[in-house]
Amino acid sequence: MLKKPIIGITMGDPAGIGPEVVVKALMDKKVRHRCYPLVFGSYSIIFSAAKKLFVRVNLRKITWVEDILEDPAEGGKNSKAPINVLDCTRFDHRKVKPGKITRLSGRMAADSVIYATQFALSNQIDAMVTAPLSKKGLNLAGYDFPGHTEFLAYLTATQKFAMMFVSDKFSTGGGSASGRKVVLVTTHLALSQVAKAISKKRIFEKIILAEETLRKYFGVKKPKIGVCALNPHAGEEGMFGTEERKFILPAIKLAQKMGTKTFGPYPADTIFSPKISENFDCIVAMYHDQGLIPLKMGGLGNAINLTIGLPIIRTSPDFGTALDIAGKGIADPKGMINAILLATQMSKIPPFGSEPQGRRPKAGVKR
Amino acid sequence: MLKKPIIGITMGDPAGIGPEVVVKALMDKKVRHRCYPLVFGSYSIIFSAAKKLFVRVNLRKITWVEDILEDPAEGGKNSKAPINVLDCTRFDHRKVKPGKITRLSGRMAADSVIYATQFALSNQIDAMVTAPLSKKGLNLAGYDFPGHTEFLAYLTATQKFAMMFVSDKFSTGGGSASGRKVVLVTTHLALSQVAKAISKKRIFEKIILAEETLRKYFGVKKPKIGVCALNPHAGEEGMFGTEERKFILPAIKLAQKMGTKTFGPYPADTIFSPKISENFDCIVAMYHDQGLIPLKMGGLGNAINLTIGLPIIRTSPDFGTALDIAGKGIADPKGMINAILLATQMSKIPPFGSEPQGRRPKAGVKR
Repeated sequence: MLKKPIIGITMGDPAGIGPEVVVKALMDKKVRHRCYPLVFGSYSIIFSAAKKLFVRVNLRKITWVEDILEDPAEGGKNSKAPINVLDCTRFDHRKVKPGKITRLSGRMAADSVIYATQFALSNQIDAMVTAPLSKKGLNLAGYDFPGHTEFLAYLTATQKFAMMFVSDKFSTGGGSASGRKVVLVTTHLALSQVAKAISKKRIFEKIILAEETLRKYFGVKKPKIGVCALNPHAGEEGMFGTEERKFILPAIKLAQKMGTKTFGPYPADTIFSPKISENFDCIVAMYHDQGLIPLKMGGLGNAINLTIGLPIIRTSPDFGTALDIAGKGIADPKGMINAILLATQMSKIPPFGSEPQGRRPKAGVKR
Repeated sequence: MLKKPIIGITMGDPAGIGPEVVVKALMDKKVRHRCYPLVFGSYSIIFSAAKKLFVRVNLRKITWVEDILEDPAEGGKNSKAPINVLDCTRFDHRKVKPGKITRLSGRMAADSVIYATQFALSNQIDAMVTAPLSKKGLNLAGYDFPGHTEFLAYLTATQKFAMMFVSDKFSTGGGSASGRKVVLVTTHLALSQVAKAISKKRIFEKIILAEETLRKYFGVKKPKIGVCALNPHAGEEGMFGTEERKFILPAIKLAQKMGTKTFGPYPADTIFSPKISENFDCIVAMYHDQGLIPLKMGGLGNAINLTIGLPIIRTSPDFGTALDIAGKGIADPKGMINAILLATQMSKIPPFGSEPQGRRPKAGVKR
């Protein structure tokens, strides 16, 4: 039987660098040693990406996860071990032009995500890793989501979820899992809408999700969470904004009441300075750039994005479709490799809400 | 006669760490070697700050700048050379409690700034460096400004001005003047107001000010300016905000038309990553935290704030009043020292709008 976890990997939008980084990442020894990767997407597109890279790879089109069993032992031992592709979209590589997002490329990206999610929900795969897709493609294809995170929340019917970023550079520790962590309260939202979108409830939920994730997946017994202010100088006693007093501080106090070690709100330019940030296991940022500027200062493409709160495990690299370099063979797969390794590690622990429930006989009930 | 520039140094809000860092900075050999510092504030407060620090310093109360001439040669040669204080506020140290901002402490801070500005405008001092004051104190004292920058703009009747930050850590070069630079389009403003506050005109003005400052004071012949987007992913083609298309891009195009090397808008989490930011001499950020998070990641208190566009030269450290450690003698004067050294260096070049005008005889006019 399979001893290593099966990690589903979506190919992303085929007009971007997704298929290329997937192929490159799957040539990585560590990846093949630690998991059975299963690519969700178009066989034809993965094949053509590998061909373009002049990579000799033994691709295998499969229909059922059980097909992996046919040749499982070889995985990781040599590069001839097959890479399995679950061919889940009807369109092929001739329909796609590198760098050009279309309704069709968006549709193919969406199909891959939908399939992988279904396989994860039914425990046929142990975790999923997503290659970058384009929000534009997604929208053209009729899926009105700003990105993977919200799409996955919809597909898994999840109400409480958050984006967490893990960086190994922005860190005092080492390794992908011990890197510094940031959780966002709001994500892909115009800056003008951010202040309206934050609320005590929303901030509180993200703090609790962050806290649970750190305990559950990262082995931090008593996680210390630092919370950013929204306004410059944390509003300087209400002179530049009152959201700190109205929403952020009450959310922190509530989280403290629940027994968590939560601190703040700190001015965002203070909390990310080295001496302050190293006091926290995770920093909760109010909006996208507030959390991602410090994270990406460690270098682009190194951080890993994970969606926390889902009933499945999902990670991804933090880069986008990079349309300008699509099809050129120069994309760096490091972020993708990190994302697969983190998903592999996390897959040893069952995700939120997926603990076996109702299977245990209730006390006093005859069976 | 005086060969070194006279640098006016305000004491800041006496309830904060201002007087302490001023005294500490003025003990620095480099500072005393390169300029004649002249403290603007309360003699009694500076005296008491020095006493608390057990520093043997030869303080001298002066009324006219000419008094510096009495003993100018000694400056910088030994620590017994006097430190001159221009006693410009009526209140003394007994009225002030460390850590407690009052109407009176705000008044004293404001008086120091007003005096120093007058002396700078009348060319009695060559530049001014401000120690931190509290916006709350300023407001209590009846000055409704969010900070030094706007206060100084008012006092000097300046319409076009901007905050520039210079960091020596966030940099590929060395020294305080070659550090990486950030200019802010909006400053002390609630985040909810930022999107409304940016306009093509405002962004354009800041780009031009940044460009002129780099050429004039930092010896960059053809400065390369990178401009941040406002929204995450630069709005991703209008999906999360349209300010990039409406305001930022038109401002950049106009600046390019004027012959400047201006680029962008870039997503803020991209432009500050090491490989991208090193392409620019200055980065124009749309709001406070967008520019200051990356800057302060180099360490707190190292960056220098300068107000560009004023008819006088003004720098300051980037830290605040730090009320929690006021009066404890543990404040780090490094930022203050850097600010004084940069002001000294800049004072060799006359400020904006102060070039002698109308003094030169016009062609054809008999005298």
